[in-house]
Amino acid sequence: MSTEMKQIVLASRPDGAPTPENFRLETAAMPTPGEGEVLVEVQYMSLDPYMRGRMDDAKSYAAPVPIGGKMEGGSAGKVIASNAADLKEGDMVFGPFGWATHAVADAKMCRKLNPDQAPITTSLGVLGMPGLTGWHGLMEYGRPKEGETLVVAAATGPVGSMVGQIAKSKGLRVVGIAGGADKCKTAVDHFGFDACLDHRAYDDAKALRAALQEACPKGIDIYFENVGGKVLEAVIPMMNQFGRIPICGMIAWYNEGGLGENAGAGITAPKLWRTILVNFLSVNGFIISNHWNRFPEFLADVAPKVASGEIAVQEDITEGLENAPQAFIDLLTGGNTGKAIVKVS
Amino acid sequence: MSTEMKQIVLASRPDGAPTPENFRLETAAMPTPGEGEVLVEVQYMSLDPYMRGRMDDAKSYAAPVPIGGKMEGGSAGKVIASNAADLKEGDMVFGPFGWATHAVADAKMCRKLNPDQAPITTSLGVLGMPGLTGWHGLMEYGRPKEGETLVVAAATGPVGSMVGQIAKSKGLRVVGIAGGADKCKTAVDHFGFDACLDHRAYDDAKALRAALQEACPKGIDIYFENVGGKVLEAVIPMMNQFGRIPICGMIAWYNEGGLGENAGAGITAPKLWRTILVNFLSVNGFIISNHWNRFPEFLADVAPKVASGEIAVQEDITEGLENAPQAFIDLLTGGNTGKAIVKVS
Repeated sequence: MSTEMKQIVLASRPDGAPTPENFRLETAAMPTPGEGEVLVEVQYMSLDPYMRGRMDDAKSYAAPVPIGGKMEGGSAGKVIASNAADLKEGDMVFGPFGWATHAVADAKMCRKLNPDQAPITTSLGVLGMPGLTGWHGLMEYGRPKEGETLVVAAATGPVGSMVGQIAKSKGLRVVGIAGGADKCKTAVDHFGFDACLDHRAYDDAKALRAALQEACPKGIDIYFENVGGKVLEAVIPMMNQFGRIPICGMIAWYNEGGLGENAGAGITAPKLWRTILVNFLSVNGFIISNHWNRFPEFLADVAPKVASGEIAVQEDITEGLENAPQAFIDLLTGGNTGKAIVKVS
Repeated sequence: MSTEMKQIVLASRPDGAPTPENFRLETAAMPTPGEGEVLVEVQYMSLDPYMRGRMDDAKSYAAPVPIGGKMEGGSAGKVIASNAADLKEGDMVFGPFGWATHAVADAKMCRKLNPDQAPITTSLGVLGMPGLTGWHGLMEYGRPKEGETLVVAAATGPVGSMVGQIAKSKGLRVVGIAGGADKCKTAVDHFGFDACLDHRAYDDAKALRAALQEACPKGIDIYFENVGGKVLEAVIPMMNQFGRIPICGMIAWYNEGGLGENAGAGITAPKLWRTILVNFLSVNGFIISNHWNRFPEFLADVAPKVASGEIAVQEDITEGLENAPQAFIDLLTGGNTGKAIVKVS
């Protein structure tokens, strides 16, 4: 076994959009698992928008990554040494291994995977945190009803594609928003959306809204919020009475110093607040880490649908840990199509 | 019986705060009740902030009052002629009689009152629409839990005082916000709030927040929103995780062309949205007219408490229909203490 491992640390906090200089590839001594721990060789590492938040030191639901600290994240890999009763060498696991080739983790923090049931990469996306986020957020806060209209942005991402496909299966009209004609084609052809609009084709929220009004002739009942900014501004005046807005992210605002005071300037707090009041909207912020108790139910519902192909999967795999920073930077500007994954080994 | 009645109509739409010129007192022929209708002599008329919205022609949950049309509102009065089986002369009723000395109404739109159970003025406030608004909004969307902290503005108003008293009875710490030292004293001494802050004593949201932080050492779990503006701006960063914000109004923003784009400038849409996300807030807009089905349950719960004095009442009664416009203008700037009522006859 190698005596060294590689990891990527936070070199400095970004000022707006992250740059390669905010990350540093380091070599470290291979760690040794203590009692109840395992050593994992990472095979696939997940890239997710929430990681942008961890790079700032703003107050949020999770502590920031310290300067010089390993970038956090979930990965799938193989147990190569075990001091835990429940896991043995060769087991495939998902866990919080961070941006690294290897990691030691408490076995209780690892979830054993069955590679015969589904490729292990699905544990990062459709059958993992993003899939559960879409499924739980839609069912719990979106409360979809047949005949309603749902809009979700980042439609080809792992959250948006789950939301769209589940809503479609419940009999809703499902309209996606994505960046670029190719992604829109993927949303419709691969994920079965009724329509998908390329937000890059519209100069401002007003133009985007005009297109949405054609795509959503009966208004919008559920807006699954994961982007904020221009899309939110376009959608808000189209919300129907008793509409629901689950909020799991706002990627458009992540690069604005963590707050984006100047982004989405066309939507003001009074206008947002007034729309919630006069249209009797229900708005719920959530982070899926508070709802892992629903994971077994989610897996029981969705895993067979993934196996049968009823729920489609799309992954965007970058080769090599050293390319993770650029892939992450691209993710934040919509450079990927499908679940962003880094193949580490 | 007189052959004439008086009513107040909307003379013109206000540009910002309403002025006396926006209203006109008119004399009209006494109407005659048709089949199933009653003629009511109004005794007490309610003034409520929602009426400001009806003066604009902005899209809202209710149609605007047309120019020249009678101002809308609920009143309590005596049936003086009846063509309906269910109501007879002398019955006391509450109904949508508008700003007028008399009105004809469908008997089905009238609720019969029992003056022996409670003074009929309570049908306008604590046992009427505002009381139900506070009770339903708190119980349904606020979901109060013992030991939590609740903040409500317009604390001595009929909604705020109901919210505070019900929350107090559930074991919450209850902090009010009101305009002026007298109102704050009323909130604490008469309505039993734990504390009440005079928002006029604080120059800006930051100063108000500093005072709130002292009054709410464990943060805020429920913010019952009826004002918007500076109070919202002060409260938002203090919301605890899993907090709830029922929204039934935003009086601070009503006078800003119906939208208040420039009010509460310290709170931006991204900041609001981000707080909802990272603190997992649940925000629900509602208007009580969608929830009248809960009225019997509300009355069964609250009427005995009003009768026993467990729930305190405060009314601010102006004499004379002709003084209703000025009383309404005062209401919008907090000139009243307690439920605003006009004694019409």
